[in-house]
Amino acid sequence: MLVEELQTPALLVERAVLRHNLDTMSAALPGLRLRPHVKAHKCTSLARLQHANGHRGFTCATIREVEAMAAAGLGEDLLLANEVLDTRRLGRLVQDGHRVTVAVDSAETIEAAAAGGVREVVIDVNVGLPRCGCAPAAAGSLADLARKTGLSVRGVMGYEGHLMLVQSQDERREQTGQAMEQLLAASADVGGDLISAGGTGTYAVNTWATEIQAGSYALMDTAYQKLGQPFQQALSVLGRVISVSPEWAVVDVGLKSLSLDHGLPSIEGAKVWFCSDEHTTFSTEDGTRPAVGDLIRVLPAHVDPTVALHDTLYLVDGEQVLERWPVDMRGWQ
Amino acid sequence: MLVEELQTPALLVERAVLRHNLDTMSAALPGLRLRPHVKAHKCTSLARLQHANGHRGFTCATIREVEAMAAAGLGEDLLLANEVLDTRRLGRLVQDGHRVTVAVDSAETIEAAAAGGVREVVIDVNVGLPRCGCAPAAAGSLADLARKTGLSVRGVMGYEGHLMLVQSQDERREQTGQAMEQLLAASADVGGDLISAGGTGTYAVNTWATEIQAGSYALMDTAYQKLGQPFQQALSVLGRVISVSPEWAVVDVGLKSLSLDHGLPSIEGAKVWFCSDEHTTFSTEDGTRPAVGDLIRVLPAHVDPTVALHDTLYLVDGEQVLERWPVDMRGWQ
Repeated sequence: MLVEELQTPALLVERAVLRHNLDTMSAALPGLRLRPHVKAHKCTSLARLQHANGHRGFTCATIREVEAMAAAGLGEDLLLANEVLDTRRLGRLVQDGHRVTVAVDSAETIEAAAAGGVREVVIDVNVGLPRCGCAPAAAGSLADLARKTGLSVRGVMGYEGHLMLVQSQDERREQTGQAMEQLLAASADVGGDLISAGGTGTYAVNTWATEIQAGSYALMDTAYQKLGQPFQQALSVLGRVISVSPEWAVVDVGLKSLSLDHGLPSIEGAKVWFCSDEHTTFSTEDGTRPAVGDLIRVLPAHVDPTVALHDTLYLVDGEQVLERWPVDMRGWQ
Repeated sequence: MLVEELQTPALLVERAVLRHNLDTMSAALPGLRLRPHVKAHKCTSLARLQHANGHRGFTCATIREVEAMAAAGLGEDLLLANEVLDTRRLGRLVQDGHRVTVAVDSAETIEAAAAGGVREVVIDVNVGLPRCGCAPAAAGSLADLARKTGLSVRGVMGYEGHLMLVQSQDERREQTGQAMEQLLAASADVGGDLISAGGTGTYAVNTWATEIQAGSYALMDTAYQKLGQPFQQALSVLGRVISVSPEWAVVDVGLKSLSLDHGLPSIEGAKVWFCSDEHTTFSTEDGTRPAVGDLIRVLPAHVDPTVALHDTLYLVDGEQVLERWPVDMRGWQ
């Protein structure tokens, strides 16, 4: 099948670029040093390539992601790096022989983990991002409570998400060091092997964590691209020009097929004016007029929520469609 | 089933508010005066209520929406208010006895309509929003071309989308009048019965169009709420507080379950700090501390792309879940 035969909008993944990104990361962080985050692609076919590259543990953000990974035979060591209050679905996976570890940061989430049949937890520590995670000084006593409740505590996690897009690599390294100092202190109180942290923005500078939870590196977006990392943009949204006016043209890719939360998408050689539900209005930089029917690859600014809007990823090699991958981890039910 | 038993995040529709919105609009624009736009809810169960209120024609934004409406038995008069270049899927619906009309604004889209087996079109006219639509002066000759190609031309459409959120109703009316002057001029050149335009923002002031394509009025969002219209917010995203810190709390509703393109969501009595993929960080206005496990209803700023992130709408009456409605029109394949 050819790319031009696809119904637009359609999510494309360029195989060679994906391969470059996966191999570059696996060389930098081999095996257990990387715990790929599946929330960035929500696709077990893609996770299987990461597994084949030697990464046996994965990070998930939702119960649904954990279930889909287990169902795909990738349940050797799944970390739900998020707090949940009803863990019964996770408990059923544990009973079926999958290894599932869940993040906890309060007495309530510890109780919920035990009640639902989860046996292993990590203590989620706040290292500067105002989101989940206990205060570093509280981590030890939460670990004690978890052990008293019968849970096994594998260690700590702490996501320095507020530092991912710090432009200067030196500043990113320094601030990551300060964040990880707090995580290491918590780790000393908690015990266990795991010190899980990081993401695509800090994978190269976070030398303190035992494992890095990077996800975006596989597909990449224009926000991360600006950091000058060795990964390239593998993901685009294919659209067709459906209307041409003297000063602008319209492609059938809009905010229902890519997310604007990190800003407008990019089109090579063009200026993007705005996006509406099903359309992006743009003009060309050199003043040439696109033709109705032209195929355009629109580059999203944020990969994760863009993928979540689609049910299919098309793996392509230039103009050839190689494979059709279901986005089988989206949703919550 | 109770709301508290739902897996979060979950999309809730409050039945009484939905009923109020539907009935208020049907009283203002009865029968054929309203052609409800299904892109705002992507749910045939909800469209069926609009149909039962006397609206037999519907507006769609995608081929998938047209197909799902036809499959649901709501294919009496479906207008695809968007340009498409491969109309074969629409042609098959026409062959099966559904009435499908498609918007055209160029020789290419006219040719595509005829090639795919669509028999009826409207001429899409640009009335000020830099998006699709031909120049008003070109509408007549496009209609001639369409008729020469064997198509029946039902009239014109022109969406004054740039005026939907003009705050002052008087200004909105005046500017809508100027936009519709152009559409009426095009209509005189084109012929046909239909003058299709408008939306929730201009339904009360657009007295020139023969039918209004409003969609958001059914569920509503915080952006439209600011206009002081008689519709209320029926849609919310249910979340649970999963983490509480001294200065903020975190609910498990993020930018994968609501769209940020019109800005941050709202939480009653709270200040929203920011959203990340699966989380919203907020603080309460009165300084009370939420408890882990508290249920929160988060109000999205833009209903259309929020619905597109979910596979299910739960119709509720307060704490009772009444019905589970599939969001069966999303996607493009």
